Amino acid sequence: MKETRYGLGVDLAVPYETAIERATEALGREGFGVLTTIDVQQTLKKKLDRDFRRYVILGACNPVLADRALRAELEIGLLLPCNVIVYEREPGTSTVAAMAPLPAMGLIGNPEVEAVAREADARLRAALGRLEHEVTTPMHSATA
Amino acid sequence: MKETRYGLGVDLAVPYETAIERATEALGREGFGVLTTIDVQQTLKKKLDRDFRRYVILGACNPVLADRALRAELEIGLLLPCNVIVYEREPGTSTVAAMAPLPAMGLIGNPEVEAVAREADARLRAALGRLEHEVTTPMHSATA
Repeated sequence: MKETRYGLGVDLAVPYETAIERATEALGREGFGVLTTIDVQQTLKKKLDRDFRRYVILGACNPVLADRALRAELEIGLLLPCNVIVYEREPGTSTVAAMAPLPAMGLIGNPEVEAVAREADARLRAALGRLEHEVTTPMHSATA
Repeated sequence: MKETRYGLGVDLAVPYETAIERATEALGREGFGVLTTIDVQQTLKKKLDRDFRRYVILGACNPVLADRALRAELEIGLLLPCNVIVYEREPGTSTVAAMAPLPAMGLIGNPEVEAVAREADARLRAALGRLEHEVTTPMHSATA
């Protein structure tokens, strides 16, 4: 698993559509439903006539955690749902990444929100870890 | 305009549905289209049978800025689109708030992304300022 200051990601040796299906399923097992889908490639083509790689932004929401966060901090909707991106690296290989909840929600300074963020972080890591394990490919090896 | 560490907001003396319409229009004038809508009240009712106030999360995207950000930083989709929330304070009064792009995108350390975040921030402030000006009500006065 790759980790940046704002995201967690895994590279998978599967085609783009398969990566979206598996990511949706792995999120579901951790209680996250996909509430929104933005097809970035189609949107940039339609709005700007720009070509871009295959790329989708999924809005993933765990209702139990969202409910706890909203009752602790009404404006937390500004940081919901949790974004998960899936994009094509090259045909047959894909990346799935999730927003790391802790850096964003750590801005807030509300202990209950931080507790929710820690749980969301653990569940997203579990989902990405399962994806990586299922596909059992070392990072970047598909393009080596 | 209210400012928190992660959001900018205005309180408006208009009903919830009107606030959603005006926010959508004000965002449109700054080049932000609403790509996604999450009805928080309906979602919590449906998934958890929990009652909650009228509350919506709009995913607002300025395609020109999104395109610049994505070309500068592929994984920036984790922080897109820009969330705008609208909720009912009490019948006839509403709050509209936008995620402040700078704190979130400042996590990244990419100068081009920071330039995009500054422009997005200015445009969102302009949209919220216009909303506040149109309704011409001092904050909280509607409930005084």
